[in-house]
Amino acid sequence: MHDRSPSATHLTDTERLDRLRLIRSDNVGPRTFRSLVSHFGDPRTALAHLPDLVRRGGAAGGRICTVEEAGAELAACKKLGVSLLAPGEAQYPPRLATLDDAPPVLAVRGACEALTRPMIAIVGSRNASGAGLKFAGALARDLGDAGFVVISGLARGIDQAAHRATVESGTVAVLAGGHDKIYPPEHEDLLATLLGQGAAISEMPLGHAPRARDFPRRNRLISGASLGVVIVEAAHRSGSLITARMAAEQGREVFAVPGSPLDPRAAGTNDLIKQGATLVTEAGDVINAVQPIMERPIASDVREGDDEPFDFDIDPSEHTRIVALLGPTPISVDDLVRMSGLSPTIVRSVLLELELAGRLERHGGGMVSMI
Amino acid sequence: MHDRSPSATHLTDTERLDRLRLIRSDNVGPRTFRSLVSHFGDPRTALAHLPDLVRRGGAAGGRICTVEEAGAELAACKKLGVSLLAPGEAQYPPRLATLDDAPPVLAVRGACEALTRPMIAIVGSRNASGAGLKFAGALARDLGDAGFVVISGLARGIDQAAHRATVESGTVAVLAGGHDKIYPPEHEDLLATLLGQGAAISEMPLGHAPRARDFPRRNRLISGASLGVVIVEAAHRSGSLITARMAAEQGREVFAVPGSPLDPRAAGTNDLIKQGATLVTEAGDVINAVQPIMERPIASDVREGDDEPFDFDIDPSEHTRIVALLGPTPISVDDLVRMSGLSPTIVRSVLLELELAGRLERHGGGMVSMI
Repeated sequence: MHDRSPSATHLTDTERLDRLRLIRSDNVGPRTFRSLVSHFGDPRTALAHLPDLVRRGGAAGGRICTVEEAGAELAACKKLGVSLLAPGEAQYPPRLATLDDAPPVLAVRGACEALTRPMIAIVGSRNASGAGLKFAGALARDLGDAGFVVISGLARGIDQAAHRATVESGTVAVLAGGHDKIYPPEHEDLLATLLGQGAAISEMPLGHAPRARDFPRRNRLISGASLGVVIVEAAHRSGSLITARMAAEQGREVFAVPGSPLDPRAAGTNDLIKQGATLVTEAGDVINAVQPIMERPIASDVREGDDEPFDFDIDPSEHTRIVALLGPTPISVDDLVRMSGLSPTIVRSVLLELELAGRLERHGGGMVSMI
Repeated sequence: MHDRSPSATHLTDTERLDRLRLIRSDNVGPRTFRSLVSHFGDPRTALAHLPDLVRRGGAAGGRICTVEEAGAELAACKKLGVSLLAPGEAQYPPRLATLDDAPPVLAVRGACEALTRPMIAIVGSRNASGAGLKFAGALARDLGDAGFVVISGLARGIDQAAHRATVESGTVAVLAGGHDKIYPPEHEDLLATLLGQGAAISEMPLGHAPRARDFPRRNRLISGASLGVVIVEAAHRSGSLITARMAAEQGREVFAVPGSPLDPRAAGTNDLIKQGATLVTEAGDVINAVQPIMERPIASDVREGDDEPFDFDIDPSEHTRIVALLGPTPISVDDLVRMSGLSPTIVRSVLLELELAGRLERHGGGMVSMI
């Protein structure tokens, strides 16, 4: 069972190095990467213009990843059996590639064939009940037997139970840090075992130890790579509910396992069902819901050249006008356009320069603020 | 909080006696009662024609309730504090009155004001878990505090917990037997207590000990009198699921309390949610769903004179033709019309005669068979 036919894209060593340099440079995230490549045509040209953009954004620092640094990462990855893939390459998870903020470089390790099979995410409480762990394991096993790859976050509790039950059928662990910084450390053995039929993926460089804010960011990869996400146990305001919200925003199916109203670990999942998530008591509930999605071709949004345009021929007075309107309180880009009287293209371009200079923070819903 | 304004209908003693005689006669159920009154105009005229219809249906017996028998029931009811009400009378539960098969005579006892307040049914396993009992009690209490009357079946388990929690706020017990044949007998004390602020109702005559088949029949009154039914715990193929199905057929809301997929007592309720029942974890879930229904006037279908017509001027050869087509295997009335070449009115009339004679059994979906 494959989630789509293998892609034709293949990068040269130089292309891969350029790509890695651009995404590893300061203040360049997946969306900025995409904007730059969209404007300049390819990573190499974007890198050539980057120092100028950073300077005009008003930065003191803003380090650009050197050829040597990127080369060293590639060599270290090779030593650890880690490949660095671009969206559209053969083993890049095809659904993950469709995200607006798909990792421009994904570090993958293990039996990478697993990454192109249809995936179902199973996540839930770290502090799960015995019944929750048992159910997660049984559900994962049944989904694995039905040909799905189970993807999760290698955390304690539900994640662990889901991975462990699918070591033989294939499971994917999404890491919040680099491939050499496994969290929690006691799951290194589980990870080593699951790499036999499955894989581990990360968008972070080697040596990156995961911080608290890296986990929600990582969760978007769990939901994004999958057809749908099953939340097994989740209290009110728990991390798994963030994954559920991301899944919904990404257009993925959201599944939730019900529980007694008297069980606080079921409060989050019962709420999800009230809000429209599909109730799951057995693997068939998941399979029936994703079957029609698997039959449709994956909406490919991989091209990095069709974004809104930029214009970096900016008058210093325009730059000043926009900076004057910005402060620590988030404001919408639409308001900035209206208040500045400048074109959306100019506003967007100034904001990108400020972002690359490390002076702009982007919030949800098109809101921005100065740092 | 009242479920509607008091009705204007009031029966004379003679009308009440005639009504009681007709429904207590052999082979006259709520639907037959309705058909006869619809055709003959009132119960007294129907009673006058009944012996002739029974004879033509080919019965050996087919007892008609006498004036003395009905008078004796009325007197015994009075002694026990039981009133006999017709649909449309002031304290007849207004939503119950809208059913096609509403009891033509309802025996009520207790604080009958409770019967015109908005009701929510709470039902579930007799063999409930501690958590199920606790939740049923808490939900019932909260609904009672919000002004609703909780209606249930006085059974062990969930029913008992729901009644007990609403003794003060008002609760209604629907009996499967007569008011003097309480089942289970150990709930006689609970019943006596709940009559203070609540009521008990039954469509059965005094002295009728409930048989197994009376319970599903009774369940239609629980759902029919309510705005909606909450199923708290129910295994696969349990009696509570029959109540849920009846509620749906009657156009009532169906609510279900979720539970772990590993808990067999939640299998039925989880299935109901999959099929579209509203998931309930707190009273607010029920109240929000029934609020808009309470704001609409109750669709009154009480009139007993607008049914499809009969024609008892039947040729013996027509009678014979229909009887010849009938056997122990159920057949649809539509098929009988087509195969006999007779008019629907004639077929319907012959079937009513056979029914009154105790020779016809009606099944669901317009199917009939000979006994």
